[in-house]
Amino acid sequence: MSVLPDLAAIEALDAADPLRSFRNRFVLPEGVIYLDGNSLGAASSSALAELEQAARQEWSQGLIRSWNKAGWFDLGLKLGDRIARLIGAAHGQTVVGDTTSTNIYKALHAALALRPDRKVIVAESGSFPTDLYMAEGVVATRAGTSLKLEGVDAASIEELIDESVAVVLVNHVNYKSGALRDMAALTKRIHDAGAIAVWDLCHSVGALPVELDAAQVDFAVGCTYKYLNGGPGAPAFIYAAHRHHNHIQQPLSGWWSHARPFAMETTYAGAEGISRFQCGTQPILSLRALKGALDDWDDVDMQALREKSLALTDLFIALVEARCGAYGVSLETTRERERRGSQVSFAHENAYEVMQALIERGVIGDFRAPSTLRFGFTPLYTSYRNVWDAVIILEDILSSGIWKEPRFAVRTTVT
Amino acid sequence: MSVLPDLAAIEALDAADPLRSFRNRFVLPEGVIYLDGNSLGAASSSALAELEQAARQEWSQGLIRSWNKAGWFDLGLKLGDRIARLIGAAHGQTVVGDTTSTNIYKALHAALALRPDRKVIVAESGSFPTDLYMAEGVVATRAGTSLKLEGVDAASIEELIDESVAVVLVNHVNYKSGALRDMAALTKRIHDAGAIAVWDLCHSVGALPVELDAAQVDFAVGCTYKYLNGGPGAPAFIYAAHRHHNHIQQPLSGWWSHARPFAMETTYAGAEGISRFQCGTQPILSLRALKGALDDWDDVDMQALREKSLALTDLFIALVEARCGAYGVSLETTRERERRGSQVSFAHENAYEVMQALIERGVIGDFRAPSTLRFGFTPLYTSYRNVWDAVIILEDILSSGIWKEPRFAVRTTVT
Repeated sequence: MSVLPDLAAIEALDAADPLRSFRNRFVLPEGVIYLDGNSLGAASSSALAELEQAARQEWSQGLIRSWNKAGWFDLGLKLGDRIARLIGAAHGQTVVGDTTSTNIYKALHAALALRPDRKVIVAESGSFPTDLYMAEGVVATRAGTSLKLEGVDAASIEELIDESVAVVLVNHVNYKSGALRDMAALTKRIHDAGAIAVWDLCHSVGALPVELDAAQVDFAVGCTYKYLNGGPGAPAFIYAAHRHHNHIQQPLSGWWSHARPFAMETTYAGAEGISRFQCGTQPILSLRALKGALDDWDDVDMQALREKSLALTDLFIALVEARCGAYGVSLETTRERERRGSQVSFAHENAYEVMQALIERGVIGDFRAPSTLRFGFTPLYTSYRNVWDAVIILEDILSSGIWKEPRFAVRTTVT
Repeated sequence: MSVLPDLAAIEALDAADPLRSFRNRFVLPEGVIYLDGNSLGAASSSALAELEQAARQEWSQGLIRSWNKAGWFDLGLKLGDRIARLIGAAHGQTVVGDTTSTNIYKALHAALALRPDRKVIVAESGSFPTDLYMAEGVVATRAGTSLKLEGVDAASIEELIDESVAVVLVNHVNYKSGALRDMAALTKRIHDAGAIAVWDLCHSVGALPVELDAAQVDFAVGCTYKYLNGGPGAPAFIYAAHRHHNHIQQPLSGWWSHARPFAMETTYAGAEGISRFQCGTQPILSLRALKGALDDWDDVDMQALREKSLALTDLFIALVEARCGAYGVSLETTRERERRGSQVSFAHENAYEVMQALIERGVIGDFRAPSTLRFGFTPLYTSYRNVWDAVIILEDILSSGIWKEPRFAVRTTVT
């Protein structure tokens, strides 16, 4: 962005935005510029309506009959296939249920079972930590297995991939920096070494087009409460390539993964297909809010989404550097568009206090220790004008030094 | 019940019922006698109101700020302590999250870690099957471990308990027959052999008083969407006795079980206390419906609940045997009050068809293969008159033979 736009140019961008009508589908608070949809997505009218229908009609009035009549039992499979388009997956390879953490556990076990002669799991030290903690749990339950980390055992993940490696667990977009991995290239590198690729899509699904089948990914997991707007803590999803379906062995073998769950058999027999990655009874109310959110996604052109995402993040970087560069902010996210997700991080020595001051002024981003200001740009409900206004407020906070007031230094439990 | 009551006596029982006002808290469909609260509990106004508050205010308006301001992050711990009174657990030993299946996996691993020199898991072949499937998953991830079953390897669970046994996984109330185990006696027998006791409370929590601490139970799991009325698929809970808290090792070691989840550390360090049984981010909307349901439970006298439960099941058994005994029904549940949960099962050769005919007439129980008619009696919203009316309808269906009509034989996926 060589010439900084003025307000008229910003307004022209919004007027020409092919996604601008989506904003009307969301219920957002007055006076807030929400740049944290990468942590918790906003509520759409459709999500709220589905939730109410599920609670007031299907649960209250249908009671147990709704397991059949309202299709609750297959909901995880149906919603998985709704997400499939967003992640480049053909039918029948994706199921919604449990948490990202739990699904990582399943995927790593399944991958290790496919490579019984190999014992090394590779991951990133810069990963969202639960991925590593779950990998440690897997190591504890598979004798001889070990975990090697990029940033600890080698500088790059590629250096760690050799013929001892069974599985590589890697984040598509880094939760903190917003860095985007080249999925196709890294998956090929992993396969060339004979290993299995498990991708964590938490910060890419709904933020940009993902092409799992085209990249020949083996397994993937992801979250539905960030860009997908499924509601706080909405259940996660797991993807397994068709070619592995006859070979899935995962130890969270609950009754929903059984070939005949209602036959009440004493012995486990895994279901065909992606169902084998299910486990126990799922939280239907949360799933139904997600269903409503996915109704909105059916109408989204993923290329238009990506173009707007990059335009928003380009604009934010340019405006912050032009207006706030003198106040100690430095870009942590790459300027390279092909390597960027839909979020931008800036470092600042007093990032915690600055973020608290921003939130007080209605600009909601988040802080990541020790010094990161993180801003997420959700193309469905963020306008160019939002970006413009947010930067003016950030400039005002930094130039006035108001963030130095003691109230902004009070730490709360969760940020 | 030596003399069968008449309708006047039934109405007198309802008039004298100390729990009768609870029925007004529930939103039940017109024209239905709901005898399946042991499968899916009914919705209370309080549960629906909490859900709406969580969705329309906290999510829509509070957005990410609600993780702190609405107390979402600690919700599983807070709700665990609300359930504690119902299961005889002192503070800080119970947490809500994940599914019963997943929690069984955690509990069995934790138990096996406490008995590293022992390799046998004992369970019941008549268990709800997911318990067995999860135990198989644990066996698959712990070398040398094996599973022995009551009803397969020996006639009684007591016969299987010897010094090779690490852990016994047992249901407090059998899901099918309604048989109630003597928790204190069996736990003592398990401890005398040096083993660990894991109790599945799915069909006892909210159905009768449970006394985990008094019985010195080691671990317990349970479901919240049956008698507790938490909503379809509401998250489960897990209990661990204080004495084990410093020794909990469970492999589903997600970030919510970390000592410092927001420090984003690379290496796992388990939290103190029951938090170590948490895993990943929980479905907040479903948890909030459960919170509303538990508000109702705070006012329930558990002894009064048990007395009414036994009175309802006694009455049902007596009326069915008197009115329907000629039509091929035979009692599968014990007459012995001390060994009975809050459900009654009758066998009938055509149980499937009879249950479909009952449901068409508005009496909702359920069918369990191959030949069980199962009826649950939830003292908070079931009246003596409900029992009376249900038996009259059952008698009418059996005596008229209407269940033989072909439409009642059409099988649906889930029952």
